[in-house]
Amino acid sequence: MSNQPAQPRDAAAKPARERVVIIGSGFGGLFAARKLAHTGVDVTIIAKTSHHLFQPLLYQVATGVLSQGEIAPATREILRGQKNARVMLGDVTQIDVEAKTVTSQSPVGEAVTSYDTLVVAAGAGQSYFGNDHFSEFAPGMKSIDDALELRGRIFGAFEMAEVLQDPEEIQQWLTFVVVGAGPTGVEMAGQIAELAHSTLKRDFRRIDPTKARVLLLDAAPAVLPPFGEKLGKKAQAQLERMGVEVQLDVKVVNVDEEAVDVIDPDGSPRRIQTRTKVWAAGVQASPLGQQLAEQTGAETDRAGRVMVEEDCTLPGHPEIFVIGDMMSLKRYPGVAQVAMQQGKYAAKTITHRIKHPGGEKLPAFEYFDKGSMATVSRFHAVAKINDRIQLSGFFAWLAWLGVHIVYLIGFKNRVTTLLHWTVTFIGRGRSERAVTDQQVVARMALHREKLATEAEQAQTAENGAA
Amino acid sequence: MSNQPAQPRDAAAKPARERVVIIGSGFGGLFAARKLAHTGVDVTIIAKTSHHLFQPLLYQVATGVLSQGEIAPATREILRGQKNARVMLGDVTQIDVEAKTVTSQSPVGEAVTSYDTLVVAAGAGQSYFGNDHFSEFAPGMKSIDDALELRGRIFGAFEMAEVLQDPEEIQQWLTFVVVGAGPTGVEMAGQIAELAHSTLKRDFRRIDPTKARVLLLDAAPAVLPPFGEKLGKKAQAQLERMGVEVQLDVKVVNVDEEAVDVIDPDGSPRRIQTRTKVWAAGVQASPLGQQLAEQTGAETDRAGRVMVEEDCTLPGHPEIFVIGDMMSLKRYPGVAQVAMQQGKYAAKTITHRIKHPGGEKLPAFEYFDKGSMATVSRFHAVAKINDRIQLSGFFAWLAWLGVHIVYLIGFKNRVTTLLHWTVTFIGRGRSERAVTDQQVVARMALHREKLATEAEQAQTAENGAA
Repeated sequence: MSNQPAQPRDAAAKPARERVVIIGSGFGGLFAARKLAHTGVDVTIIAKTSHHLFQPLLYQVATGVLSQGEIAPATREILRGQKNARVMLGDVTQIDVEAKTVTSQSPVGEAVTSYDTLVVAAGAGQSYFGNDHFSEFAPGMKSIDDALELRGRIFGAFEMAEVLQDPEEIQQWLTFVVVGAGPTGVEMAGQIAELAHSTLKRDFRRIDPTKARVLLLDAAPAVLPPFGEKLGKKAQAQLERMGVEVQLDVKVVNVDEEAVDVIDPDGSPRRIQTRTKVWAAGVQASPLGQQLAEQTGAETDRAGRVMVEEDCTLPGHPEIFVIGDMMSLKRYPGVAQVAMQQGKYAAKTITHRIKHPGGEKLPAFEYFDKGSMATVSRFHAVAKINDRIQLSGFFAWLAWLGVHIVYLIGFKNRVTTLLHWTVTFIGRGRSERAVTDQQVVARMALHREKLATEAEQAQTAENGAA
Repeated sequence: MSNQPAQPRDAAAKPARERVVIIGSGFGGLFAARKLAHTGVDVTIIAKTSHHLFQPLLYQVATGVLSQGEIAPATREILRGQKNARVMLGDVTQIDVEAKTVTSQSPVGEAVTSYDTLVVAAGAGQSYFGNDHFSEFAPGMKSIDDALELRGRIFGAFEMAEVLQDPEEIQQWLTFVVVGAGPTGVEMAGQIAELAHSTLKRDFRRIDPTKARVLLLDAAPAVLPPFGEKLGKKAQAQLERMGVEVQLDVKVVNVDEEAVDVIDPDGSPRRIQTRTKVWAAGVQASPLGQQLAEQTGAETDRAGRVMVEEDCTLPGHPEIFVIGDMMSLKRYPGVAQVAMQQGKYAAKTITHRIKHPGGEKLPAFEYFDKGSMATVSRFHAVAKINDRIQLSGFFAWLAWLGVHIVYLIGFKNRVTTLLHWTVTFIGRGRSERAVTDQQVVARMALHREKLATEAEQAQTAENGAA
């Protein structure tokens, strides 16, 4: 099936509307699309999920505070009123920079979409630094599915501990390891500690959830390195007050179903018995970056990010913008703010070119850093506005709350989000604990299969002996 | 692993606390457990999900109105304050009425739990009347997983239609068939029609969602038979006003990926091209019913329900109660009210026997029918209080709203539920449209596999030809 086949454009005809194709519905893609409203261009967003994901709050879905709907509104609902924007579900597998086409796959087949200008904002996935087999045991935190999977594993671990009798096995299920002490890792470790030591405290009869161990590991010597030493130490101290064991300079060398193997700072190996692992350690840009690099000779960095020009375009291809987590420019961090600002910048550049064909270029993209923040626990956050203004504790948490409420505005669910936050922050409860059967049933099936195989083997052995 | 091994009880010792084991955390199991609070018995609920499911609102999760957390609070959270109740995750595979033990499976292995009194409230699953292969193409509506799967399929169908070019294929994706015109089927058909004709109206650019066809099929000659002819006709008329095609006396003979095959009232076969099917046609009692019957000689009906005595116990086994959707008694319907009342009755009987050992029995269980209701659309429901009091339209809908708010009270999420209802009923929006990758990714993977196989076959054919 061919979608919008690339037809020769008749130069003599009335100039067709500029076709802008945007790959990805994250912060970069969405902000580019919105900025292109009322501009006379045709916008097509191709994305592999039908929702926009407010990724900074994903950890709250994983830990039962929010529902997936609250942080993942349908992209086409957000863009409902923007008549020049079309949303198409599809996983982009091929960009052809010569033919100017994008090929995407969906359950109903392949679609080929032609573009005049392309905005590539496909983001980044989790990186296991070459150890992709870790992913089975230590899910990342990149999608709604990841968050629901982790929700099932985290709440499920306490359920399993309650069923068991053997103290060692129980402790293994009550040990949670978060790998990576960046914002996501810090937030996850803090949330799991709150769950164990507060939310679930009175929910069990045999186990004592407050005996759960929560470990936060990082190969680097600091917590939240981009926040600087002062805030990093504050965050670490707060995590430790909550009972999180922060272990730095610790390198993870293996992950399996029952444990995490690490190398301690002194070089000695150690095995941490744990059933529940969260991977928040690294990112890898979308493979589309590598594909663009191969076709155009652009360079990529170790994380697969494409080195772009100062106007966020691909070298030699002013019609292709690469923005957000999949580009590399002036060491800008891989955060939502950069993606949003680049999305808007790309849109402005596109309309500027149409209005002033052959005119002067817009000034280079400059990231305006509004600061960054991470919550450590309820009522406690760290916020770095700039080198002089750094907050920690309750006021930083209030700032976090304010910023997130403002950014959620425009999403229909902000009222219920506030209510869920009230439940959690004031009542210490979790409204969204419901777990799907996905992994529980899958594991049960595996367990039964194992039993059947064992029974069969025993039978065979018996027959052999007889 | 043996859990609470059956030890000989020393008759001379201080009498041990009565051990009541409840299988299932639905309405029957939960209400039995709560009624046993402060009674001096030990209660163990064994259930295969960690949540209690408010099943009457499951269709709202499937159609994007509510989040799963709102209708599925954690069972152990509901029972947090009831110190004599313990909740254990496990799928009961074996009841041994002689040894008085229950064997359950969980991902960490097998547990054997001894009981003095057993309350079996394991409910019912979907029945495909011997055609279990339909389930792949037409999911039922029995669990959170079912609802999320259907949410993905329903919203996904519109996404697929928007990608496609071929009008016939598009219409196939825009045709929704609901099999079974009981309350769940009526509610699903009404919701899908509202989605198509109202919620999604302005969300697409190529397709017109209002062109979607929604069919409600039933082999019986009426909609909502238990509500009587008058209300059934009213519900049917309202569905038809909403654009639902109600087809009665139509027998479904096959379901595959692309269609539903039916036999029309005149005996002629017909094939309905449709990608999205919902099965709301029949129920089958938990297989534990059959197991009990085999061990005790009790009888079961065609749907696998156990015929119980008038005190809801198994014939010859006064220590085993079978309640709710898996029992058969005086043709009581398989509704939440019966299960709740039987749960409370079983609890009362248990405490009565302890207080009056050898005393007179309690009067037989009598179901007090408070009436039944089903919503057809926003602002429109049917409610049958008794043979004289029958409502339809807005007042019935208000009654539905009132009853569901009252029954949700006690669940933390009733405030957000009310908000989500406001969004839907007043704003016609859906706050919980977020779809997991589950089936989308699975289908994409299948599609790619198919492509790879085809490419390989082509290659082989080419090599063979050369």
